[in-house]
Amino acid sequence: MNIVMLGSGNVATHLSQALKQAGNTLVQVWSRKQAHAEELASALNASAVSSVNEISPDADLYIISVVDDAIADTASKLRIRRGIVVHTSGTTGIDALKGSSVKTGVFYPLQTFSKHKAVDFIKIPLAVQGSDKDTIEILLKLASQISRNVFHADDNQRRAMHIAAVFACNFTNHFYTIAKDILEQHQLNFDLVRPLIVETAAKVQGFSPDTVQTGPASRGDEETMRLHREFLKENPELLELYNRISRRILEKSK
Amino acid sequence: MNIVMLGSGNVATHLSQALKQAGNTLVQVWSRKQAHAEELASALNASAVSSVNEISPDADLYIISVVDDAIADTASKLRIRRGIVVHTSGTTGIDALKGSSVKTGVFYPLQTFSKHKAVDFIKIPLAVQGSDKDTIEILLKLASQISRNVFHADDNQRRAMHIAAVFACNFTNHFYTIAKDILEQHQLNFDLVRPLIVETAAKVQGFSPDTVQTGPASRGDEETMRLHREFLKENPELLELYNRISRRILEKSK
Repeated sequence: MNIVMLGSGNVATHLSQALKQAGNTLVQVWSRKQAHAEELASALNASAVSSVNEISPDADLYIISVVDDAIADTASKLRIRRGIVVHTSGTTGIDALKGSSVKTGVFYPLQTFSKHKAVDFIKIPLAVQGSDKDTIEILLKLASQISRNVFHADDNQRRAMHIAAVFACNFTNHFYTIAKDILEQHQLNFDLVRPLIVETAAKVQGFSPDTVQTGPASRGDEETMRLHREFLKENPELLELYNRISRRILEKSK
Repeated sequence: MNIVMLGSGNVATHLSQALKQAGNTLVQVWSRKQAHAEELASALNASAVSSVNEISPDADLYIISVVDDAIADTASKLRIRRGIVVHTSGTTGIDALKGSSVKTGVFYPLQTFSKHKAVDFIKIPLAVQGSDKDTIEILLKLASQISRNVFHADDNQRRAMHIAAVFACNFTNHFYTIAKDILEQHQLNFDLVRPLIVETAAKVQGFSPDTVQTGPASRGDEETMRLHREFLKENPELLELYNRISRRILEKSK
């Protein structure tokens, strides 16, 4: 397929590279930031455009991978003859693309991407949605070129996936940061919990997380929790978080 | 060393197996639950005892690996001639062992253990504390037999490690459970976030978590957060957690 990528962030970068490797042609990269468009375009052997007017009207697929707030606006500016317009957002509905093309869809990879860390796309779940049966099939086929785990999901299911990901990824990463802060306040290095973090994630690959919950709250170990509260009392916000989550674990473990 | 293990839980099991493999002799296993003591003892070629009175007075090391509330009580019942008495708790102070022996200490492995999942002890940070210089040195030497990462930590540092571990492990595992619940409420499988969980943990092995934070809160993406709040409104407790943690991430990202 001939593909135009609109966006140059982490999802845009990793997705367009995977699609190119699978044999598709990345025709153009558009970004509000010319320098970003050029950087990604050069990696893809595509041409960089910084004005929406320069976007080719003849591509097969237009992938809008910009911040959610800008999706509808970007889509509305497209002047294309044919081709499918998709976005890559977990939360934005397919309706945001209305009017941009007859055929619209969503192409949502459920993974966290960093600019400088390669990811193996083949294992990444790819949720696809389309305005009609044909579009869904075309997008599922394309998705299958880069991932072993492709499926159809509607707006509501995709939103559930995104919120699940916020808890399982964004919020857990913030808790890693909390752990780092606590350790460093006591002249200890974040290295200390790195093996623990890997093991915690590894454990739920083969087990369900509710069956492998450990820690003082899951044991109902009140004395340990009392000492932890004592320790956290200088930081009321952390203490409040500690109490809330411990209470949830305690109730779940009953 | 000749070692008596008091306790038969996850830490007791994995630690005594690692110590045995390193060439030490596990003499006895004591547990309030006779069946548990017997199960672990038979795996270690040790004898099982269910009464504290039967514990040998002549071992080199007594490891108390029971729930925190029971450490002081268990220690006080020991009648031993010589040998070091240690516990394996992150939160309990070394003072809980006072009076049980002239030489006391702490032997704290910072990892999450499950009964049926093997762990590679060599990478596990082992924090050691002792009542005197000699004891600290003996315990550091023993710890070095099973781990590459051994160091001295006082009560307060060990408590900091434990609380850091609660956030980085116990609480993140609870968030995996929340993700599972949200997915299943929408006929989606927990499998969908398993690769994401592994990647999130892998990412902070080489980077600091505050530098790789992703998600709507870190981008200040208000529209996405609005839609997430809308989605979570039937579950006020989750909504409250969502708002609290998002606010923290937002502030950190500024």
